[in-house]
Amino acid sequence: MMSMRTTTEYLWFNTKSHREYLNITQQVSDIVAKSGIKEGMVLVSAMHITAAVYVNDAEEGLIQDIDEWLERLAPYNMHYRHHRTGETNGDAHLKSLLLHHEAIVPITNGKLDFGPWQQIYYAEFDGQRKKRVIVKVIGE
Amino acid sequence: MMSMRTTTEYLWFNTKSHREYLNITQQVSDIVAKSGIKEGMVLVSAMHITAAVYVNDAEEGLIQDIDEWLERLAPYNMHYRHHRTGETNGDAHLKSLLLHHEAIVPITNGKLDFGPWQQIYYAEFDGQRKKRVIVKVIGE
Amino acid sequence: MMSMRTTTEYLWFNTKSHREYLNITQQVSDIVAKSGIKEGMVLVSAMHITAAVYVNDAEEGLIQDIDEWLERLAPYNMHYRHHRTGETNGDAHLKSLLLHHEAIVPITNGKLDFGPWQQIYYAEFDGQRKKRVIVKVIGE
Repeated sequence: MMSMRTTTEYLWFNTKSHREYLNITQQVSDIVAKSGIKEGMVLVSAMHITAAVYVNDAEEGLIQDIDEWLERLAPYNMHYRHHRTGETNGDAHLKSLLLHHEAIVPITNGKLDFGPWQQIYYAEFDGQRKKRVIVKVIGE
Repeated sequence: MMSMRTTTEYLWFNTKSHREYLNITQQVSDIVAKSGIKEGMVLVSAMHITAAVYVNDAEEGLIQDIDEWLERLAPYNMHYRHHRTGETNGDAHLKSLLLHHEAIVPITNGKLDFGPWQQIYYAEFDGQRKKRVIVKVIGE
Repeated sequence: MMSMRTTTEYLWFNTKSHREYLNITQQVSDIVAKSGIKEGMVLVSAMHITAAVYVNDAEEGLIQDIDEWLERLAPYNMHYRHHRTGETNGDAHLKSLLLHHEAIVPITNGKLDFGPWQQIYYAEFDGQRKKRVIVKVIGE
């Protein structure tokens, strides 16, 4: 039995496009390795309400499918009530809710305990500005 | 290195409306402060299958957008098979699945480690009765 | 104060149907009991990108409602771009994202701290092959 430990790091993004999907698996994996934590979990959570973190496949066609699907279910639309505040990103809030803003990944033997195709993505729905993701490792 | 600690509290709700969105950030924040836990995570999870917990903006127009959007994607409908049991809340189950029933929030330096606009909401989809949310803090 | 402990187990599935919804509450509950962990959380996470883990009701009509609803929001469709890779399971990826691939359940007094109707489901969207779920208990 060892004592509990935690490590916290922040990833910064500033995407070129309004919407963008970034594979951050290696960055999260590096933080876990550096933490020295062998057994536990890593929380990967967007610190903004117009972005998401999800786990799925690193396949370019699928990423385009996901983007079209999100646009179908939570379309860009000038008539959201939220836009009375001067914002135009109502759809980005709904897309963030649909994909969820966070994922928690198990760590076993010091590594992300993933199946063969699982990858961690940062999904930006209102980019071209500085955004942050927190990566917090908890374990022993 | 300190030992691991946990704190568990329950929040009770009994909303006046059938659907309601309650900002519970302060309540969760107070539980974290009281726990004395400086580094870790707090799980905020609805204990019912017709409610959700989500993280997004405290903006009234957006909350109405979210409500309309949920009603569009998971409409109130008398023809759900679930209603053969005598229930009428099939839509509330689907809305709960869509927003997810739980969120897990990082704690750093004894505080919710949130971005500037993140707030924790309890979303009630079948209210006017007593409902509960568990808040469990884990860390050191 | 006790030291932190973790337990990790894997559940294997090979469903007869292409889509299937399996109640795994008892299996997760048994793993928690065996772990001896009294206070903490259990992460239940699909290790595949075409399956989900969710918490909701064990009611047969509702499960059919969920299946129809997922098919409406993320339909089986031969025209997904992902299918250029030779796959035919684009819809299964989207259904997995919609329900989320993981759930985290609080543990209090050695038991899943659930409300009266909460059950853990493994949702298979591309079955008839071997698939895995990781169950990781963390606590004291």
